Amino acid sequence: MTIPIQHGVLLTDLYQLTMAQVYFSHGIADYEASFEHYFRTYPSYGEHRAGYCVSAGLGALADRLERYRFGDRELAALAHMRSASGAPLFGKDFLDWLGANGDFRRLILRATPDGRLVHAHAPMTVVEGPLALAQLVETALLNHRNFSTLVATKAARVKQAARSGTVLEFGMRRAAGLGASLATESALVGGADFSSNVGASHRVGLPAKGTHAHSLVQAFMALGGTELDAFRAFARIYPDDCVLLVDTIDTLESGIPNAIRVFEELRGRGHRPAGIRLDSGDPASLAPAAVRMLDKAGFGNVPIVLSDRLDEISISRLAETLARDAEDPDRIIGRLVFGVGSRLATSEGAPYLDGVFKLTAVRQDRRWRHAFKRTDDLAKSAPPGRKSLWRLYGEEGYARGDMVTLADEVPDREGTAPPEPLLEDAWREGRLSGEESLHTARARRRADMARLPPACLDLVDPEPYPVVRSPGLRALSDRVLAAVMIGEG
Amino acid sequence: MTIPIQHGVLLTDLYQLTMAQVYFSHGIADYEASFEHYFRTYPSYGEHRAGYCVSAGLGALADRLERYRFGDRELAALAHMRSASGAPLFGKDFLDWLGANGDFRRLILRATPDGRLVHAHAPMTVVEGPLALAQLVETALLNHRNFSTLVATKAARVKQAARSGTVLEFGMRRAAGLGASLATESALVGGADFSSNVGASHRVGLPAKGTHAHSLVQAFMALGGTELDAFRAFARIYPDDCVLLVDTIDTLESGIPNAIRVFEELRGRGHRPAGIRLDSGDPASLAPAAVRMLDKAGFGNVPIVLSDRLDEISISRLAETLARDAEDPDRIIGRLVFGVGSRLATSEGAPYLDGVFKLTAVRQDRRWRHAFKRTDDLAKSAPPGRKSLWRLYGEEGYARGDMVTLADEVPDREGTAPPEPLLEDAWREGRLSGEESLHTARARRRADMARLPPACLDLVDPEPYPVVRSPGLRALSDRVLAAVMIGEG
Repeated sequence: MTIPIQHGVLLTDLYQLTMAQVYFSHGIADYEASFEHYFRTYPSYGEHRAGYCVSAGLGALADRLERYRFGDRELAALAHMRSASGAPLFGKDFLDWLGANGDFRRLILRATPDGRLVHAHAPMTVVEGPLALAQLVETALLNHRNFSTLVATKAARVKQAARSGTVLEFGMRRAAGLGASLATESALVGGADFSSNVGASHRVGLPAKGTHAHSLVQAFMALGGTELDAFRAFARIYPDDCVLLVDTIDTLESGIPNAIRVFEELRGRGHRPAGIRLDSGDPASLAPAAVRMLDKAGFGNVPIVLSDRLDEISISRLAETLARDAEDPDRIIGRLVFGVGSRLATSEGAPYLDGVFKLTAVRQDRRWRHAFKRTDDLAKSAPPGRKSLWRLYGEEGYARGDMVTLADEVPDREGTAPPEPLLEDAWREGRLSGEESLHTARARRRADMARLPPACLDLVDPEPYPVVRSPGLRALSDRVLAAVMIGEG
Repeated sequence: MTIPIQHGVLLTDLYQLTMAQVYFSHGIADYEASFEHYFRTYPSYGEHRAGYCVSAGLGALADRLERYRFGDRELAALAHMRSASGAPLFGKDFLDWLGANGDFRRLILRATPDGRLVHAHAPMTVVEGPLALAQLVETALLNHRNFSTLVATKAARVKQAARSGTVLEFGMRRAAGLGASLATESALVGGADFSSNVGASHRVGLPAKGTHAHSLVQAFMALGGTELDAFRAFARIYPDDCVLLVDTIDTLESGIPNAIRVFEELRGRGHRPAGIRLDSGDPASLAPAAVRMLDKAGFGNVPIVLSDRLDEISISRLAETLARDAEDPDRIIGRLVFGVGSRLATSEGAPYLDGVFKLTAVRQDRRWRHAFKRTDDLAKSAPPGRKSLWRLYGEEGYARGDMVTLADEVPDREGTAPPEPLLEDAWREGRLSGEESLHTARARRRADMARLPPACLDLVDPEPYPVVRSPGLRALSDRVLAAVMIGEG
């Protein structure tokens, strides 16, 4: 089984290839270039917006880049492409060069590792290497890092809302084809504790989690049995993993009483029931009712999985309603497990991150020459020069802000903690630098969230986090802009 | 290069496998079952909603199912999974059965083919075959068909708004990882004329389209050249495909004048310029200004590509503004090419389709037994029985509505046109039935859109399209529900 052609190196925008050919025929394809990737605005979900993003997608990107080759199949497809005149769009000499040079081993990526908190207008990936190759990597890089960071961010928000509750990622059924596996991995970095996705969970070394669907109960009933028969059949096979879905017929009248009966049988045989799942109805009234019924039957610790159209806002509201109305809200909230599906895997409300990839410098005769972009739209302008990114900390250990500097600039130390460089070696000599795991990514996220000023964590109207440009970068921007202005005048 | 494990048959929800094992150990895994897939609500994009959906994703689903096998690698991963007790989650006999039976050759799918218009609460996919396998296919089926249909629908709306203008799909940079290729293919079925996606375009037999990025101009400028030098370098390689991006410095003062200069040089050498691209600023003023400048220079037919945050609503508004304010609006609109990216590939505003997969019948002793689901939430209830779907046409050839019937029921003929069955053989004996191509899918879409009542096509507040249940289906639903009520009482 080979990878289908549309999932290989040709999953790219045509203009990357046409520009690469221009660089090639102009003799500048091998000039060293520096590009940077950053996003302009935090995801804004309608009435609320993120105050931070969780960097992700680096591991998945490296996986792709390791496999990417312009092999015979890809080169044949490109050789087949025609100009409007009918002539080949790509010349043989360029295709030969691509076949020999068109992998990504000569590129160096520095990046915020998966799990770190990142902010608007701060470079989260810097790509350096031959101009044509650094250009060619753009689509794959943006395609992986933008989406992963978006979903990891949504997951972090859901986890914040869920407080001590467990978060399960359930979104494959409405996710974007094979993009579902990237959504799962990103959600697990960002805050989901587990996922129902078998393949992606296996890859990152976590157990997949799940319950059963309505179809199990329906199948038994269609064959003349009952909901109770279906529950018993499930419990027989999974006595220690038995989560029962209780809303196929009637949650309070049928589902929960039947589940309790099966749980009693399990207990009698020495097993511990794993939970019930509520997939419809109002959880603010059903969850406390379920807790009362389970408590009364002596199942005081059995979790309750909720799975109906959840996101960070609906979970927050539920927690608030329970805190206001329920008798013992903390006990109820602590037993809840949030199965979050479509709205997490698609980052509903803000389904894309506006990350961009901009050329900032090209090296000629051993000297770096600055690239800039000024457009009619100020928000789309990009400052010149190779850059670094630093995080500054205040007295109490909280981040005071990020500073974008020139590559050879180090911010002044203010206060007790030294400035922390945020861009680390990520890709070199054709592979991911260092050891990466879900565990390390999650640890980074937790550490960064603990050091983010709490007001920046607010789910609604978070306080803006400062990202500033260093004196050196500001001076360079002014100088380059002035030169262009004079050139224009 | 083998397919990574997370993109194979294990891209599924754990509960499909745990339920399959219950069916297996209960001896009903091979019972014939009928499941159906439908969506409950049209995509609602905030202030506006779709009045129809465009069915898609069947070809891509078949591609996946053909490759899906529980091979050694997958079975080893499953054998490795543990129950909470530490015992294996899956038994050896079940895994052996999966290895021998766990492909999808024994399933039969009937479905609305790609390109057909489909509506809420009307089954667009019916899966029949062994209960455990029909259950196992759920995640892949929903993952492909929900997302594809969603993006095809968005593309159809964008194409409606663009009127005679060309639509290019540009969305890979913010799409969901490898899901980008499915987004492209779906957009091409739904209404995008071309895409910048090289691999996906190649797969469906279309040329990929593109221009160049700001980085090309920036690179030349950083190396001491000018925007004009960059344009000339591009034009030298692509004299017959020369679309120039004109907003790197200043659209009206620099970009367009330089583009015109290069176009004049091209014309002098016998070539025809292919266009300019505007990626920032207000297109309602820039597009007419660009048209005036190009006209004055004698380039009356050169297209203008717009590519800044477009969707169906912004395109509609632009067309309205031009119609009101521009001197010769039809001429301007006819020259526009709409490069639609992030908002198309992610279906911004409605990033998922709420398609579900429900068991409707199981066969035992040669008799089909009806499955049903009644929940506390009426919108989530699913009617029983194996079904068919028909489209009824009125006197003027417009669709009057769709009728969901029992599988063996044929709607009465009313008026001149006979009822049209909408579900066709889609998958049988392990492969896609019939010849499928982008061409046939697009032809179906065009034919269906011409027959949809025009008020259902409105981009904002479309008229609801009737989907009714046949007398036979209503009678069966009542009978099954009554039986359950009596059973409960």
